[in-house]
Amino acid sequence: MSNNKRERRGLMLILSGPSGAGKTALSHLLLDEYKDMELSISSTTRAPRRGEVDGKDYNFVDEDTFQNMAENDDFLEWAEVFGALYGTPKAAVEAALGKGRDVLFDIDWQGAQQLKQAAASDLVKVFILPPNLKELEARLRKRDQDHDSVIAERMARARDEISHWGEYHYVIVNEDVESSMDDLRAILSAERRLRKRQPWLAGFVRNMTQPFN
Amino acid sequence: MSNNKRERRGLMLILSGPSGAGKTALSHLLLDEYKDMELSISSTTRAPRRGEVDGKDYNFVDEDTFQNMAENDDFLEWAEVFGALYGTPKAAVEAALGKGRDVLFDIDWQGAQQLKQAAASDLVKVFILPPNLKELEARLRKRDQDHDSVIAERMARARDEISHWGEYHYVIVNEDVESSMDDLRAILSAERRLRKRQPWLAGFVRNMTQPFN
Repeated sequence: MSNNKRERRGLMLILSGPSGAGKTALSHLLLDEYKDMELSISSTTRAPRRGEVDGKDYNFVDEDTFQNMAENDDFLEWAEVFGALYGTPKAAVEAALGKGRDVLFDIDWQGAQQLKQAAASDLVKVFILPPNLKELEARLRKRDQDHDSVIAERMARARDEISHWGEYHYVIVNEDVESSMDDLRAILSAERRLRKRQPWLAGFVRNMTQPFN
Repeated sequence: MSNNKRERRGLMLILSGPSGAGKTALSHLLLDEYKDMELSISSTTRAPRRGEVDGKDYNFVDEDTFQNMAENDDFLEWAEVFGALYGTPKAAVEAALGKGRDVLFDIDWQGAQQLKQAAASDLVKVFILPPNLKELEARLRKRDQDHDSVIAERMARARDEISHWGEYHYVIVNEDVESSMDDLRAILSAERRLRKRQPWLAGFVRNMTQPFN
């Protein structure tokens, strides 16, 4: 009779890619499909926008609280953007991973690079590429009717984001959502099976190799 | 119009585990299912046994040929076992990987450790565990009617092999062949998608981010 509780350690799934490549749609599909996956919720000092829910879209905190957390090393990463502070609380992520839940991050290359407080072995980094940039530009134009200069600026930002594809474990060319989901399912399926994510194995092998009585 | 030849680099799939855990059965199933996978064929100086086919079971070579290959650094690993020399020819493996074919190795922990001439990034190491050692002992007894002392020696060897489970990327507890095959399919599916195994991506991104004419 053995204690066969096979609890895995969760992983941090990072999805990056240029805006318009489809990573947010893929994130929603993943969260719908995988009940043991949750979206990382950042803390921020900026005011909630219309429709944003505290504890769901962000944890809205005041500047003192944020600074205290930063000083206590309570963030996996934090940064200032347009005068507001944003950070990823360490405790929530660690609690999820310890319970065998995966945490999804929909962040750009800078956010991914800044997750330096996380154990490298927890990170599964996936870069989502568009099939081509004309397609991406078309998607951006369809999304909102902006001036050409705004589109040009976004395309420059997309090129900058794409230039970091080499920093990721996996690269998915998002030609259609269903085959990209197949790729993500395969990645999750294998990454969840890695020895390092199966802490129960050590006890299992110890029990197995004990001399019989 | 882009040149979308998406040729992946093959991987070296190492299956290790104690004799009787089922890795040879899994190897046969993998080779049946994956037409782009081949079994690594060792070179040896020992004489062919009845039924063994040169170039299929082993490459049978004379001692001079073997020694020359060893001196020319033509083996990924080689070793002497009971007076005969055994080695894994580097060129055949490299040719397969370069053509996007996977190479399967059904070897023990010593063989796996000795593959030090291979690029670490090519290796996918999977350890096959039996569900328990009583089951393994039963399988060994069923396999051939040996004396207790022979069984005891094999069980000691099994324990030694099992003690190396921590050196592998993945560990599969082979409770039933079909679910172990599912695990192996998931592993192959994800490992084949890793960025490092997709050399075409560099050109793909370069083409994509070139300024339009």
